[in-house]
This record gives sequence, C-alpha cells and structure tokens, in this order.
Amino acid sequence: MEKTEFYQTGPSLSNTFSPWLQQKLSKLLPTDVFSQIAPHLKHVGQLAVSDWLTYSREAESTPPTLKTFDPWGRRIDEIQVSEGWRALERAAAVEGIVASAYERKFGSHSRLYQAALLYLFHPSSAFVSCPLAMSDGAARAIELFGDNEMKANAFKNLISRDPLKAWTSGQWMTERTGGSDVSQTSTTARLDQDGTWLLNGVKWFTSATTSQMAMLLARPDGAKAGSQGLSLFYTELRREPGSLEGLEILRLKKKLGTDALPTAELRLVDKKARLVGELGGGVRKISSHFNITRVYNSVCAVGHLRRALDLAWSYAAVRTVFGKKLIDQPLHRATLKEVEAQFEKCFDLTFYVAGLLGRDECGEASEAEKLLLRALTPIVKLFTARMCMSGVSEVVESFGGAGYIEETGIPRLLRDAQVFSIWEGTTNVLALDFLRAVGLSPQDFILAAESAFKSLKTDSSWALAVGILVSGFSREEMEVQARRLSFLIAEAISEALRLRS
Amino acid sequence: MEKTEFYQTGPSLSNTFSPWLQQKLSKLLPTDVFSQIAPHLKHVGQLAVSDWLTYSREAESTPPTLKTFDPWGRRIDEIQVSEGWRALERAAAVEGIVASAYERKFGSHSRLYQAALLYLFHPSSAFVSCPLAMSDGAARAIELFGDNEMKANAFKNLISRDPLKAWTSGQWMTERTGGSDVSQTSTTARLDQDGTWLLNGVKWFTSATTSQMAMLLARPDGAKAGSQGLSLFYTELRREPGSLEGLEILRLKKKLGTDALPTAELRLVDKKARLVGELGGGVRKISSHFNITRVYNSVCAVGHLRRALDLAWSYAAVRTVFGKKLIDQPLHRATLKEVEAQFEKCFDLTFYVAGLLGRDECGEASEAEKLLLRALTPIVKLFTARMCMSGVSEVVESFGGAGYIEETGIPRLLRDAQVFSIWEGTTNVLALDFLRAVGLSPQDFILAAESAFKSLKTDSSWALAVGILVSGFSREEMEVQARRLSFLIAEAISEALRLRS
Amino acid sequence: MEKTEFYQTGPSLSNTFSPWLQQKLSKLLPTDVFSQIAPHLKHVGQLAVSDWLTYSREAESTPPTLKTFDPWGRRIDEIQVSEGWRALERAAAVEGIVASAYERKFGSHSRLYQAALLYLFHPSSAFVSCPLAMSDGAARAIELFGDNEMKANAFKNLISRDPLKAWTSGQWMTERTGGSDVSQTSTTARLDQDGTWLLNGVKWFTSATTSQMAMLLARPDGAKAGSQGLSLFYTELRREPGSLEGLEILRLKKKLGTDALPTAELRLVDKKARLVGELGGGVRKISSHFNITRVYNSVCAVGHLRRALDLAWSYAAVRTVFGKKLIDQPLHRATLKEVEAQFEKCFDLTFYVAGLLGRDECGEASEAEKLLLRALTPIVKLFTARMCMSGVSEVVESFGGAGYIEETGIPRLLRDAQVFSIWEGTTNVLALDFLRAVGLSPQDFILAAESAFKSLKTDSSWALAVGILVSGFSREEMEVQARRLSFLIAEAISEALRLRS
Amino acid sequence: MEKTEFYQTGPSLSNTFSPWLQQKLSKLLPTDVFSQIAPHLKHVGQLAVSDWLTYSREAESTPPTLKTFDPWGRRIDEIQVSEGWRALERAAAVEGIVASAYERKFGSHSRLYQAALLYLFHPSSAFVSCPLAMSDGAARAIELFGDNEMKANAFKNLISRDPLKAWTSGQWMTERTGGSDVSQTSTTARLDQDGTWLLNGVKWFTSATTSQMAMLLARPDGAKAGSQGLSLFYTELRREPGSLEGLEILRLKKKLGTDALPTAELRLVDKKARLVGELGGGVRKISSHFNITRVYNSVCAVGHLRRALDLAWSYAAVRTVFGKKLIDQPLHRATLKEVEAQFEKCFDLTFYVAGLLGRDECGEASEAEKLLLRALTPIVKLFTARMCMSGVSEVVESFGGAGYIEETGIPRLLRDAQVFSIWEGTTNVLALDFLRAVGLSPQDFILAAESAFKSLKTDSSWALAVGILVSGFSREEMEVQARRLSFLIAEAISEALRLRS
Repeated sequence: MEKTEFYQTGPSLSNTFSPWLQQKLSKLLPTDVFSQIAPHLKHVGQLAVSDWLTYSREAESTPPTLKTFDPWGRRIDEIQVSEGWRALERAAAVEGIVASAYERKFGSHSRLYQAALLYLFHPSSAFVSCPLAMSDGAARAIELFGDNEMKANAFKNLISRDPLKAWTSGQWMTERTGGSDVSQTSTTARLDQDGTWLLNGVKWFTSATTSQMAMLLARPDGAKAGSQGLSLFYTELRREPGSLEGLEILRLKKKLGTDALPTAELRLVDKKARLVGELGGGVRKISSHFNITRVYNSVCAVGHLRRALDLAWSYAAVRTVFGKKLIDQPLHRATLKEVEAQFEKCFDLTFYVAGLLGRDECGEASEAEKLLLRALTPIVKLFTARMCMSGVSEVVESFGGAGYIEETGIPRLLRDAQVFSIWEGTTNVLALDFLRAVGLSPQDFILAAESAFKSLKTDSSWALAVGILVSGFSREEMEVQARRLSFLIAEAISEALRLRS
Repeated sequence: MEKTEFYQTGPSLSNTFSPWLQQKLSKLLPTDVFSQIAPHLKHVGQLAVSDWLTYSREAESTPPTLKTFDPWGRRIDEIQVSEGWRALERAAAVEGIVASAYERKFGSHSRLYQAALLYLFHPSSAFVSCPLAMSDGAARAIELFGDNEMKANAFKNLISRDPLKAWTSGQWMTERTGGSDVSQTSTTARLDQDGTWLLNGVKWFTSATTSQMAMLLARPDGAKAGSQGLSLFYTELRREPGSLEGLEILRLKKKLGTDALPTAELRLVDKKARLVGELGGGVRKISSHFNITRVYNSVCAVGHLRRALDLAWSYAAVRTVFGKKLIDQPLHRATLKEVEAQFEKCFDLTFYVAGLLGRDECGEASEAEKLLLRALTPIVKLFTARMCMSGVSEVVESFGGAGYIEETGIPRLLRDAQVFSIWEGTTNVLALDFLRAVGLSPQDFILAAESAFKSLKTDSSWALAVGILVSGFSREEMEVQARRLSFLIAEAISEALRLRS
Repeated sequence: MEKTEFYQTGPSLSNTFSPWLQQKLSKLLPTDVFSQIAPHLKHVGQLAVSDWLTYSREAESTPPTLKTFDPWGRRIDEIQVSEGWRALERAAAVEGIVASAYERKFGSHSRLYQAALLYLFHPSSAFVSCPLAMSDGAARAIELFGDNEMKANAFKNLISRDPLKAWTSGQWMTERTGGSDVSQTSTTARLDQDGTWLLNGVKWFTSATTSQMAMLLARPDGAKAGSQGLSLFYTELRREPGSLEGLEILRLKKKLGTDALPTAELRLVDKKARLVGELGGGVRKISSHFNITRVYNSVCAVGHLRRALDLAWSYAAVRTVFGKKLIDQPLHRATLKEVEAQFEKCFDLTFYVAGLLGRDECGEASEAEKLLLRALTPIVKLFTARMCMSGVSEVVESFGGAGYIEETGIPRLLRDAQVFSIWEGTTNVLALDFLRAVGLSPQDFILAAESAFKSLKTDSSWALAVGILVSGFSREEMEVQARRLSFLIAEAISEALRLRS
Repeated sequence: MEKTEFYQTGPSLSNTFSPWLQQKLSKLLPTDVFSQIAPHLKHVGQLAVSDWLTYSREAESTPPTLKTFDPWGRRIDEIQVSEGWRALERAAAVEGIVASAYERKFGSHSRLYQAALLYLFHPSSAFVSCPLAMSDGAARAIELFGDNEMKANAFKNLISRDPLKAWTSGQWMTERTGGSDVSQTSTTARLDQDGTWLLNGVKWFTSATTSQMAMLLARPDGAKAGSQGLSLFYTELRREPGSLEGLEILRLKKKLGTDALPTAELRLVDKKARLVGELGGGVRKISSHFNITRVYNSVCAVGHLRRALDLAWSYAAVRTVFGKKLIDQPLHRATLKEVEAQFEKCFDLTFYVAGLLGRDECGEASEAEKLLLRALTPIVKLFTARMCMSGVSEVVESFGGAGYIEETGIPRLLRDAQVFSIWEGTTNVLALDFLRAVGLSPQDFILAAESAFKSLKTDSSWALAVGILVSGFSREEMEVQARRLSFLIAEAISEALRLRS
C-alpha cells in the first residue's frame, strides 16, 4: 500500500567547483595559476558533496559535550567532539585550507586560491571554518609580531598539512563587558618572578576551546584603562585529558546555529602566557587578525549562500505543485534569480577584497589598494552577512513547509546564516569601522576606488554614496548614515566589478 | 571574587497594553467600545508579561512528545504536552481569544477587539495561537456551512470560555503532494453502508493533533480529479488515552521553531467523518477558513515583531558598549527605529483588514470593502510575515553575541518568525492569490482602494503599483511582477493609513 | 488487523492498606489506637495507588536538572524538580509522614503509626521518603540538642503539616574521603568575628539539596583529627532563586536508581552555620540521626519489596504461558511464596524495631529494650536491604522479558532496591556496628533478646548465633563472622516474632 | 586549592588472561592445545582491557537509535549503532569468537578454546556477544539442517574472520503471546505461487536486528496449533539503507541494561523466507540453537562476574576507610572471597559443559555424556545467571556510594547482570526443562553423573538432590522442587569438579 504513495524527492548536490565558478576564477587569476589549481579545486568540490557532507552531518547531529568532573570528583573540563568534526579538521589540514595562504606558492594570488578553497570547504565543514579563521589570523599575527620560538613552532603547526601535527588556534577576545568593544577587557596579566605572564579573567565566547593554542588580550598590572592598556598574549593548551592547566571551561553555549562548534565560556586562573611582540599595542596587533577573520567571514557567508541556492534550484527542479515544476513557475524562478543576483554581488566583492589582501600580504599593494583593503573589509563583511541572511530566508521559504522541518537540513541553513552578521562585529559596528577607516579623508577613499576601477560606473548608488561621504554631515549624522552608506558603496562597487568582468 | 565581576542585565518587559497601543486602538474604535474593552486588554497585557510568560517558557522548553506504543506493544499514539501548554489553552478559553469574535458583543468591532486580544496573547502563547486560528476558522466554516448538530455542539465548544468544555480544532489540509496546492489531495472518502464517511490518507502537517476535532479535505469515491472533486469533512477525535480511533500519528516533526506546538504527520485509516455542507465545493468552503487564519497569521506576526522590538529597546537601555548605552548610540537608535517604522506599517495594515473582516462578518461591508478584504488579505499576510522576519533578524543582531545564545530567548524569536512566511501560503503563493483576487478587474481594486481611503495619497509606491496592475503585461509577466506588486501595494496602503490616522 | 492481535495485560494495584496489613497492625497496636488510625491509613493506601502513583511516575520520568549559570553568566546553581516531586512533598506534609511521629498523639505508638504511613507512602513517593528521613533525623537531633531558636523555628517547620510552611532538611555527611567513615571529614569550621561559624569543604553525596536547611559535620579550627574533633552544625539555605549563598552545587549525580531524587555534590564556601549543642561530640549527636534514618531505610525497603510482590502476584494472575496462568503454575507460585516469606520476616523485624524506637523516644523503654534497639537497628537495616534486593531480583525475573523493559516500570524496582543496602551504611559497615553495639557484653544482648521475647524459640539460627557471639573468637575472627552473625540473628528474631504473633 | 584535596583513585584492570585462568585452562586442555592457544588468549586478554574497553564504553554511552522515516516521509526503519559497536563486531570476526568453534582446529577441544575466547571477549564487548550467540546457534542449525545453499553462503559468512564478509544472525523467537513458550507463535507462513514462503507476524524481542540474516519460527498455513505445527525458517535482510523489505521495525526497547544492544520489536509483512530442513519440527530444530545460546549465556555470565570481581579487588586495594585499605579489612575480604567461591563453581560448571558440547559436536561424546550435556545445560545456565546476579550485587555494594553512581561504570554491571537470568529461559523455565530432560529416568542421569565423575563425592547437596530425584513425588511436587533441585545439583557437581581438579 505504502509503495504507491507519493513521496517527494529531496534536493541533491553535485561537485561545487561548478562551471560558473571556474569561469569566475579563470578571470580573476592568471591562466597558469588557474590551470594549476583547478584540479585541486575540483577534487575539493567533490569532497564537499561526498565525504565532507557525511562528516558535517555527523558533526552537526552530534554536538560537542563538556564533562566537567570525572567519576571521582576531579575537575577535568573535557570537551568531546564528534568523529565527524575531527575528520573535517584533518581534511582541512590535508587540503591546506590555511596553509595554502602561507605557502604562497602562487605569490599574491595565493590568497585567492585559499579563498576558493575555503569557499568550497565551508558549506560542508560544520563550521570547522571558524577555528581555521582564528588559526589563519593567529598565523598572520605571529608572522608579523611573534618571537622566533612562536615562528619555529606554533606558526609551523598552524600551517601544517600533516593532520597529526596541525594545530588550530583560539582567539579569545570577547568578555561579558562588551562584545566587539574590547576596551573594557578585564582579564589581567601579572608577571611572575620567573618571567612568565599569568593571566586571570573570564572569556565569554571562545569558539575554539579544543585548539592547541590561543591568542588573547589582557591588561598587564599597572597598564592604562581602555584599549590602550591592552597587550596581546599567546598561550598553549596542553592536550592530555584533564590537563587544561590554568583553564576552567565554565560551560558550552547552546546557540541558534553552528551546532557542531564547541563555543565555550572559560575562566583563566593563573594561565601561563607569553607576550606577542612588545608590551602594549594589543588592539593594533589584533587588527591584523580581524582583517583575516572578516575576509573569512565574507567567504564563508558567500559559500553558505551558494549552498542554499544550489539546494533551492535542485529542489525547484524536482518539486511539482499547481501542476508545474517550481523551476518552471515564473515567480518562483524570478524570486530565486533575485537572490542569485545578490549572491553574485557578494561573490565579486569578497574575491576582490581577498585579492587585495593577497597583494598586501606580498607587498604588492599600492597605497590606494591598501586604503581600499582597509576600508572595504568591514563593508564586504557586513554586506555579505546581511545578504546571506536575507537570501537564505528566501531559500528556506522556497521549500515551503519542508523548509521548516529540521530533518531536511534546510532550517540549519538559516540558523547558521544569522551568525555571519554577528561574529567579527555586527553590521553597525562594522559600518562605524568603515567610517573610522575613511576618517578624515573620504576623498582619498573615493579616489582610491576610482583609480582601482578606472572608469568606475557612477551609477545612482555610487553618486549617493559619494554625496553622503562628502556632505559635511555632523559626526552624529554621519554615524546615522554609516550603515546606509556601507550598503550603497557595496552596491556601487559590486556593480563596477560586474561591469569590469 | 565572583561578586565584583561584571554581569550584564537582561531585557525586561512591562504590560504590553502600552500607551502607544491604547492610542492606536482608541482611533480605530468608537470611544465607548474602546473604554469597555480597555480594562480587559490591560489585564491581558499584564498576563502576557507575567503568568503567560512563565507558561510559554515552560511549554517551549518542554516540547511535546509522542508515545507510539504502550509497554505491552499496543499502539496508543499519545501526544504528551507540557503543563505550560495546557495552562495557555485554558487561558485562551477564559479570556475569549476566539470567543470574543463570535459573541459579537461589539458588533462589527468585535473582530478588532479579538485581534487586539490575539496580538497581546500571541507573543506569550508558545503558539497556542496556532490551534486557535484553526479553531476560529473551523467555527466560521461551521457558522457558514455546518449542520445543526455541528452548530449545537462543536461550534459551541469552539467558542466556549469554560476551559473544561472548550475545544480546539485541527485543520488538516496539507499532504505530501503539495503544500498550499490542495488540488492533489489523495485522501479518499468512502460512504459506508450506515451512512458514515470513512476517510483514508496521509496528512503531512497537522499542527493541532491534540484537538478534539478537525476539518479536512478528502475526495469522495468517484469524484473528479483536481480541486473540484474535493469535499470538506468534519471529524471528532475521542479524547481517552489510546483511543484515537481511525488515526495513526506517524511522528511529531522537529521544526526550526514553534517548539511547543505538536505538529504531526498522521494517517487516516477508515476515520469516521461527516460532510460539511453538501458534497463538493470543499476548496471554496475552506477559503473562509483561510481568510481567518491569514488574518491570525498577520496579527501574530505583528505581535511577534512588537515583542522583539520591546526586548531590543529594553536591552538597548541597559547595555553599555564603547562607553555609551546602546540606546544613546545614534546608529543603534536609527536601526531600531527603521524596524519600528516597518512594524507600524504592518500594524496599520493588519488592523485595517481585521476591521474589514469584522464588517464583512456582520454584513456591514460595502462591495468595495468586500473586494478590498479579499484582495488585501493575502497581501497583508505576506507583507507582515516578511517584515517580521527581516525585523526580527535585525533585533537578534542588535543583541550582539547574546542574540545568538538560545538561553537568552532571543534566537527563538528568529526561529519562530520564519514560520509566518511559510504557513498559510508562502509569499509567492499569496502574491499569486492576490492576482487571482483582482483577476480581470484590477481597475475595480484600484477604485475600491481609492474609495476606501478617499484621498488616497498617490505616493510613488502606489503610482508604480497602479502602473503594473494596468500595464497589460502578459500572464507570465504579471506573475513575475506579483510579488513586487504586493509589496508596493502594501507600502502604499500603509502610507495612506498612516496619513489618515 | 491489529485489533485481533494478542496484547498482554499489565499488572495493576489496589489499596495497599490490605487486609493482611490491617491484621498485622491490629496485633501490634492497642485496639483503640488501631481503630483511630485505620481510616487515615486506608485513605493513604488509596492515594498510593492513585494520585501518588501518577506523581511518582512523573517525578521519575522527569529527573531533576541543575542550571549552573543564568543566560548572562551569573552562577545560580538552580535545581529544577518536577511538579510531581513537589506534589509528593506537599502530600507528605499534609499526611504527616514526619509530623505524626512528633505530634505523639498516640504516645509511644506514634512511631508505629508513622512507620505504617511511611510504609504506604514510600513505594509511590519517588523517594521523597529520602528527604523525609533526613528531616525526621534532623527533627530528632534538634529535639535532643538544638537551641531554643532551632526548636522554635526549624523544628516546627520540619514537622509542619502546612505544605507552604513545611521544611525538609538535608543531612550532609559523606565526603570523598570516606562514605560511612566520617572521621576523615575535611570540612572546616571557622568562627567569624561576629560569632558566626563559616564552613568550607566539599560534601560528596547530598540527597536533599532542595531542602531549606541541613545538618552537617565539620571540624572547627584547632580541633583534633579523627571523629573526636567533629562538631554538628545547622545551616539554612535561602530559598530565592540564585541565592544559595555560600554553596556551590557542583553537579547532580546520575545514579543507578532513585532517578527523581536530586543527589548532588556541593562545595561550601564560607557557608554560615550554627553549632548544634556545645562544641564537639558531633559524631555522637549524629548517631540519633542514624537511628532514625536506618529505621526509615528498613521501612522503605520493606514497603518497596511489598510493592514488587504486589505487582508480581497481579501479573501472575493475568499472564498465561505454557497453557496456564502463572499463578497456577506450581513452581511460579512456590518461587513467589518464598519471597513472601522473606518479606514477612522483614516486616516483623522492622515494625518491632519501630515499636522499640517509639518506646525509647517516649521514655518507656526498659534497659533491655534500649540495648535491643541499639543492637537490632543495624541488623534490621542490613537484613531488610539485602532481602529487598534479592527478592526484587526474583520479582523482576518473574516478569520474564517484560521485567527487563524500562517502560513496564519493573526494572526501576531493581535499580531502586540496590540503594537500600548502600545508604546509611553498607551491610558490612552495619554488621560491624552491631558488633560495636554488643561490644563487651554479648551476653547482655542475649539476655535482652530472651527477655523481650520471653520464651525465645531457640531454633538452629539462634543457637548458632549465640554460639558465635560467645565463642571467644579473636577480634579479626569476630569481624569475619559479623555479617553471618547478623543474618543469623535476624532470622532467629524474626522467627520468634512470627511465633509470638 | 583544588590540588590539595583528596580524590579517590578508581579501579583498574590488567590483562584478563590471568595466571589463575591459565592454570585452569592448562588443566582442562591437553598441553599442546593449551600452548598453541595461550598466545592468542593473551593477546585477547590484553585487547579486553585496552581497545575493546574503549569501544565498549563508547557503544554503551551511545545507544542505538531508530529512524523510522526519512525527511520526506518514506518509511526507512534505519537502526544506527555506534562506531564502538561496529568496531567490536569487526574484532569478534577477526579473533574468531564464533569461527574458532567451527574451524575445529583442535578437534573437540575447539569449543573450550572458543569458550575461553568468549569469556575474555564478553565483559568488554558491550553485549556484541549476544548477536554472536545467535550467530553460533544459527551456524549450528544450518550445519545440522540447512540446505546446500545456506551452507555455501550463510554458514560461511557466519564463521568468516573477514570483517567485511562476516555476518551475524538474529534469532527471532519471542512473541507477545509467551516468552519462552513458543507454542503460541502466531507468525504465519504462506507458500507463494513461485515457491517462496511469505511470513507475517510480530516478533517481540529481536536482539540482533542489524544482522544480515535471521532464523525464526512460523506456522505454515494449515499446520497444527501448538508447538508441533511450527517450522524453522531462514530469512535474509538486505543491507542497503531503507531496504528492510518485508520488515517494519516498530521500536527499539529501552531496557534495564545491555544499553548498546539494538533490541527491537518488529513486524513481518510478507517477509520472504526459506524453510530450514523439511516442513515441521521447528521446535526440535531450534533446540540445537538453545544448547548453544545457553552455553553462551553461562560463559558470558561467568565472564561478567569475573569482571565485577576484578574491579572490586582493584578498588579494595586503593580505597582506604576507617584507617585501612578495604583489602586489609577482614570482613571486606571475607565478603569478596565468598563471591569468589561462587564464581569458581560457576566457572568449573560452565567449562565442563562447554567441554561436553565440544565432544558432542565432534561425535566423541558417550551416551552418558550426551545425557549430562542435555540435562546440565539448563542447570548451568540458571545457576551461573543467579550467581552472577547475587555476586554482582555484592560487588556493587562493596564500592559503597560510588557503586551507585553510573559514571563509575559499576551500576552497569548490575543492570547487565539481571539479563542473564531472563534471556534464554528464566530460572524456573530452565529448572522445568531439566525435569523434562531427565524425564522418566532420573536414575540414568544419576548414573551418568556418577560415571562422569567416577567417585562423585556424595556430599550433602548431592545426597539431597538424589533423594529428591528418586522420591516418587507427584508431578506438581516435582515441579515445586525443580528449582531447589537444580541448585543442589549445581552445587554438588561443582564440588565434584573442584575436587577433581
């Protein structure tokens, strides 16, 4: 009886190194570079719809657990992650999701290569991409400010392709006092008699507590209040069971999404640490971190939206209602195409900025490019995050009731999507950061943008954005406009990129 | 040591029958009506931030469970709901959330009164509002098409204020073959020798399986294919444990949100049922249902967004970052105010349509008003649902990291919000329904709108909407425009309502 | 199809104030006392198979949970218990399960009355009987050693029948260093400048953490090592959420059974407390506690075994295999009857000791009776616990496969049964305690027993027991025999009681 | 601060191929056989306290789950088991836990070798030993009754050492109508036109639903009622996801113990099957099964008790209370030694019967030995099961409070132990089976026993047992005595074995 009943076919996925992506990358990269990396990307695009998909589903359905005590009452603070999660961590090392950016095999193009890898990896990574972002940021900070010992050990491990040696790094910034506002950091650092720094405080969001090391801000005894008094520290976590010396994991957080990611609250109790660089300047040093993690956020948001769209199109091709396949219904098509258009803007912007980052890291960026990199990074992050969220919500709706049922995997897309606009600075925090970036010379930014794009198409968005930037608004008026301005610039620049390509 | 640490204060709520709401309602209702209902609304607004809040939290953290077998292997299909859920069901009866619309104590204003009650009830109801919507729709269908027995019993129970007698009703429409597209309904109805109809089939989403009755579509043996062959049936569910005769509850669905709501898949196996009205015309009869449930959807979406905003403002007043309360930061304020503006549009539109519904139910609606009610119901539903979703996503973000932590209660706002645009027809389904409603005479709709609002302000939205409506587009072009058109009309009419008030 | 299939009927229960019990109690109590309490016992026997059964099932299927932090990171240590558990706590107060022993309405017979109440209450109490035991012990300790303030407040609350005022008490003795061996207690007490004692330490098993007060041992600064240095303290727990001042609840324990009971590990951090009586003598004072809780343990074990047997007989009457009802199969009957015989021995012994306790509390006990009470209390506890365990294991087996399926409720009987031989001293600890009790004069114990039972039937058990007691064994030999001896004495005395009755 | 606190050390395990076991086996086996198998047993004994311990803990803390539907409503009935479980299944194949008995490398001694392997494997197998027992029983049934195709395929797979090819088999006997009483079996078999048997019915306990095949009883259409009408069938389960054709898994059972074992209820719906042997005689054929599974039950019970004792001794050596290590306390030692004595009786009996089984399978058993094998198998099963249960309960108690805390792993010992006396026939069922076995000629049994043991020591147990056996009791009197008799014989024979060794 059951057999003659109707059952809907679900969506399916094929290699995500799609012809579209191939074409895009072939334009962004020199031919020889593209042809060298294409086989690897194809391999990775296949993993993303096969093994990694299996791993990520296992990781997501087996969230991490925290065991605070052993049976006999000893405090152990063990975080247990699933085998799927560990398999994805190993895969990330083997495929060089971080390493490819530091091996710099393709010079300044290495960042684009790495961004493409991350873009393919992320949607099947159960957010292993998050510790990778921190690790990449930490690698960059060590490259710039670390001592020789850190470079010889931690750095090498962070970019290792050997899954037995590969490290990830935590980035423990957020405290209860203020999310993005690290100036209130209340973690203290005290210099022990033997020259070791001992850290004490509570970190409120630490997404990579299973990592082998962490970078964190603390205020040395006697240092100034506010952000000026902060220094950047490096700490290692011993990996034997029960030996997180100097750390108490207070709890794992139950979140809207990123179910597989072990986000914790933790307390430092005389945690041993080392200074990164000289005393002070912590916030400045950490900003190199943020550049990296915001680009990661953008790449992941774009990859996430791509995955959502792939599923939506696939489902539209197999679902019939009102007598027609969804894909053949004009309004359904039009709705998905609108999301596609938003996606493409996000992709273009993100990979443009990733390209700038690569040039900057390799010392090839002009002053104009440096300014653009600094100013566009927050804009691209906020824009991609918001587009991802609204686009994914449309995708969810496009599945009808099935989009609301967790078992189909579609609701997870939405739950995860919301994180992109919160992590690494909310939309408003980033809009204000953009203001800070262009600061006294909006004109310079405009010139930089125009020089970068040559005949930058002065469409209405750009005209409006320029108008606001040079309008002589009061500081408060500028703040109020900051968000609108960011979106206008994102729209204008993405339009320019579209025309250029 | 702990005691001197900083801990953030969370948001708090006060009586939701706010001065703003009082003012709004006092304009929508005659003075004597408003002054009669105000004390009750105040009482309900207080319950919504005290007892009901406690109940809804308990209900949401104790999702329903299904027990398929007893210890000895008998199939029992028992759904267990929490004490909080049951308390809210009782409260809904006592406060007359459904009854107030049918007692018609204030004539055609009764629907507005009822809408106000629902608006206050919903955000602390853990979606008990959902079975209420079905029950209200069922009551209306019985009022219009039911036989005397149904009117004497089921109808009375559906609008009872006695929690021991009060019934709720399921509305079992959706099948696997097509969500909103009921034409493929494969549930069959067979007339037994003793004159009873026996129903067989699988219903894919049934949100009120714990109800005492249900309305559902089925295809009598020998009836036509497609929607024309469907009839509307009424069935009762015996309430003793283990006695869901003729029903198998296949599973409860794990959803993105609406955690407390027992949404089930079920199979009818010779389920006894009675025809509602004569044979055939099922889809037409059920449309009275849909008018009601779509208005409920709109009221609940608006109430939901209000709750989100109340929490956001409250938090903004207690959270300090970057040296200032959030509420004192220009961009934070501006962002929330933008959501406020969207909220107000939604509120105005929804209560306007609720007013029309009241007039229609009491036979006071003009032809123009009837046309507007029919045409605006889908538009208001789709607009409020989408505004609720985007607004709530902003609210979540406005909490920063805390907005992503389930325990704060904020993520639930988002998970729940997504349902409004899916239930009762997705945005696209409703946009096409609007097209169907204005069908051959868009001009009539325009005239109706203008007559209703007298000097309807022809702002740019309206002009554009009118242009599209009368443009002579092909059918396919019209479909592609349907969604854009719906939003334009919603914007235009809400603007007119704003100016009028 | 399903309907014609065979389904086994499960066991059922009727009023547990059975004719057998009525007869037993009518012999143990004066006629007027029995006739006064019988109606209440009948009422309670009915509650035990109706409302309380429902509450206890809810409590057992909804184990307590611990919430360590609030959403904003504050430590709150809230234990959440089910509504069923709370209902049973209220019922215990209303029915006077503890109070009846202290109201002493029937003089020295009050303990027997109370034991009968507890016997009926326990098997449907989800182990609310456990905090009651502690509370009764605390009441007794206060009665004997407490100051006036404790008598005026805590004592009154512990024996209150008003569910809004009634308190329960914890008894926090066990530490990691040694279960029954309190001599290693490492909790310290320090006298503050304002005369308050501040306690610090970790308590390893605290079964009544939701109580309003607790009695506990601690070692005042400067006191001797070992058990001599310990004093008894009284502490109150403030009952507002988040205000367990001076207490950290480290975790709830997942146990083999007693699922509903919130057993916790906790840390005292400058917990304010008051001395009970003068400094020192803590172990001696707490022994009054232990007399009570060991009698409770015995009564509960006997009640528990009775429940198991009631279910086994009921099932035997409805289950047919090999062509006959189980109850009609000779070996099945014989097996259950053997357990019945063990049960009856346990009952007789337990109620004999409860009677002695009543006489002792009312100053009516002879020297011989005092000695018997002291010496038999550990024996009765160890004997009933072991008989309960082996008997329940037979009952479980008598259900065949159904006895192994949790949903039938039968496995719980076994999981719970094992606790009786562990709590309040294991079999060996108690056997050694008996040795200590008879110490230098086993002859006195023999005389006391003979005088109590007049013509104590010197059956083979007794002869053997007497032989061992007076054998002049070495200390080590005596220890080795202690357990065997205890069982022999239990068998002999229960035989004497059987003949007497 | 924490660091100076006392924490109890838990028990530990070392290679379980202990000197004691080596000595035992060296006496039971020829020197050359023992020396050949000793290295393998040593290897296995080490795995049992290392890798397998890890796997079994993972399997036990990750119980199997059943997924009845896929996201789109299709019935799939997928059982998910943990990676630990799968690893243990593979290990069982590789080490030849079943295969060693059929490879018969050591002739009739192979069963003893296999019993030793199982004894070492079981306590760290998370009850993978259960499907192995069924598989061994199935292998034996095919060897005796199967057709050539079954021998060529199923049999080979059941005894394969290749983890990729190795099969396990279910044994689906129990129905709701009667556990051990298969005579009421209501599963029907209907011969299809194409010669396939189609089975329909519900099986109430099926412990190996993840197996590749199953043996089961059914009543062909037209066959007699009662056990005579039953035939034995063989069926295969296709292993692709969603393809358990002809099977509905109704639910997994939540049991007292054996947490990792996927015990299910299932419904056969036209399940295709093949006859094993000719029509009829199902119960007789299955009895070869039972001989095997009862020996498995005994070996596992003995292994289980050994594990419990190993843990108890280990803990006794590290736990200090009342000033002494537990192991140095006379009564504690004496108590454990008493359990040791019971264990040794069980071991001797079990390996004696395993030896008889080996001789029987290899055609070397005398008539007396055949009778002893038949008659002692039920006795050994019932005796070891009950001794295991009472012994483990003592072990649990010997841990004090820690024995009641699930996390220590000790409670699991008790929860699991109870299954041995229920599975494969309860104590009473087996005692009656013994009666049946000796039936008309108890004298023959006595002679057989005496001849086997030559000068069987006529201790008091044996004298009493002989007396009962030849007493001329009525049938009902004999039934009542059956259980007592079984224990007496077990005691007597184990004593004889002890003296012989």
